[in-house]
Amino acid sequence: MTINTPLIHIPSLSAFGMKDVWIKCENMQVTHSFKARGAANAVAKLPKKVMGVITHSSGNHGQALAWAAKQKNIHCIVVVPENAPKVKIAAIGKHGAEIIFCAPGIKSREAAMQAVINNNGYHFIPPYNHHDIIEGQSTCAKEMLLQNSQLEVILAPVGGGGLLSGTLVACEQKAVDVFGCEPEAADDAYRSLLSGKMEDPGNPQTIADGLRTGLGEITFSIISKNVKGILTVSEEEIIQAWAFAIHNLKLIIEPSCAVPLAVLKKYSHLFANQSIGIIITGGNVDMERLPSSQDAEAYLCQ
Amino acid sequence: MTINTPLIHIPSLSAFGMKDVWIKCENMQVTHSFKARGAANAVAKLPKKVMGVITHSSGNHGQALAWAAKQKNIHCIVVVPENAPKVKIAAIGKHGAEIIFCAPGIKSREAAMQAVINNNGYHFIPPYNHHDIIEGQSTCAKEMLLQNSQLEVILAPVGGGGLLSGTLVACEQKAVDVFGCEPEAADDAYRSLLSGKMEDPGNPQTIADGLRTGLGEITFSIISKNVKGILTVSEEEIIQAWAFAIHNLKLIIEPSCAVPLAVLKKYSHLFANQSIGIIITGGNVDMERLPSSQDAEAYLCQ
Repeated sequence: MTINTPLIHIPSLSAFGMKDVWIKCENMQVTHSFKARGAANAVAKLPKKVMGVITHSSGNHGQALAWAAKQKNIHCIVVVPENAPKVKIAAIGKHGAEIIFCAPGIKSREAAMQAVINNNGYHFIPPYNHHDIIEGQSTCAKEMLLQNSQLEVILAPVGGGGLLSGTLVACEQKAVDVFGCEPEAADDAYRSLLSGKMEDPGNPQTIADGLRTGLGEITFSIISKNVKGILTVSEEEIIQAWAFAIHNLKLIIEPSCAVPLAVLKKYSHLFANQSIGIIITGGNVDMERLPSSQDAEAYLCQ
Repeated sequence: MTINTPLIHIPSLSAFGMKDVWIKCENMQVTHSFKARGAANAVAKLPKKVMGVITHSSGNHGQALAWAAKQKNIHCIVVVPENAPKVKIAAIGKHGAEIIFCAPGIKSREAAMQAVINNNGYHFIPPYNHHDIIEGQSTCAKEMLLQNSQLEVILAPVGGGGLLSGTLVACEQKAVDVFGCEPEAADDAYRSLLSGKMEDPGNPQTIADGLRTGLGEITFSIISKNVKGILTVSEEEIIQAWAFAIHNLKLIIEPSCAVPLAVLKKYSHLFANQSIGIIITGGNVDMERLPSSQDAEAYLCQ
């Protein structure tokens, strides 16, 4: 079972002119990321008899699927790019999944996975481009709105777009503006919305390792119809926001989570006097690679 | 102004048989510890014209007083033992206070401080043994009971006893049992309650650096009359609980905060089916000295 994570009011974040700012702590979720929500939902909806499940993942989805499959005694294989954080790889193994390494990039991942599917008929549960995954991720924003019905804006990071799509689904009938938050260095969602078609993510170099993947067809379709906007931030802005979360909020979060925190500051004029909810997506980070407290001080400077 | 910190429900902590367990995140307080509450109250109650304020502190009270004095444009001197964590010493300086180093131990601290008071007449604001400090610390438990009126037990660490005394004051007319939580290696409060008189703390060697000091006359008087019990834990138990908070809760907390978390597990039979509130006292810790994830796994094992 996934848990109802806390939604915390952070007074210091209102310094940028918002009415109040709340963070949804998915770093405290089972497997320490929101991905457990999608994986649990997708596994719950599997056909009764499956040989096993397989996926490719930079880490958090793999860990979440390994956990969700273990709950149902289903064998799980995860294809992982060689450059994924050590802590994430170790956690996938901890939940009893089998790990196969591949080169970075979506094409290498898919090729490695297809080879296994061809051999043993495992059921593929993709990281984001799947209705069951999106439905699972939608429970996060639904919870937020139950915890605080006054929220007017939700900021969610966008990589493959599963969380952002789920958030948009959850907010469909609500008076809530949802923005996607993306690194400038991995801005395929931003470019895709501009051009009206799915743009190639390439092999982006961003510290926000959870956001290196591109949109899928389903997530692109949901996002392009419903999102209020995609807002991008630089690597320096991400690192400062990340350091602020670690050293000032005293929360261990992944750099990907810092992207909406950086957006909050950079685009504060969009959020003046509003109640903002920010999804803190996960806490799986190599502890020996944390940012410095000097960077934390830069975040609150105007 | 101090802030109303979050009280967070942590489902995984109910594994020891409690109804539910809530943590009060004073690591997210101004200056990252509950000490800001006492310092702000003591500074607010100063006579109108003071030359300046002075205190001795292993770190958090010094930082809190430096912050509280700065809010009122009052000069502040802090006497700090040489073995205090670097991060705490740096933070005292950051708030503009003057720092004087002394040898570890309460007698060295008091001598160094008295020399300054004799020379310049500064107003002494002690870390815990003072009614204004205790009154300030009482706001923490008061907030907890407003945030969750169903709490039946509150666990607070005990060093000098300011927070525990304040918690007892806040719970005086309430149906809440308050326990003090102490390292075995610094168990002067436990021994003092047994003997009925203040016992010498000595120079205790515990990783819980915030709890090395002994009770004062005022805190001993309040605690011995009202506390439900003092519960002690070993260094190993503290380290495991600390690692759990860092790696599983993804919260950066000081080792002192881990003492009540260790008590929750060790004395779980005392808390069966009850709603427990735990005060997480602070988050000022040297980031290069964090515990390992192996220790974290040991905490949840029965």
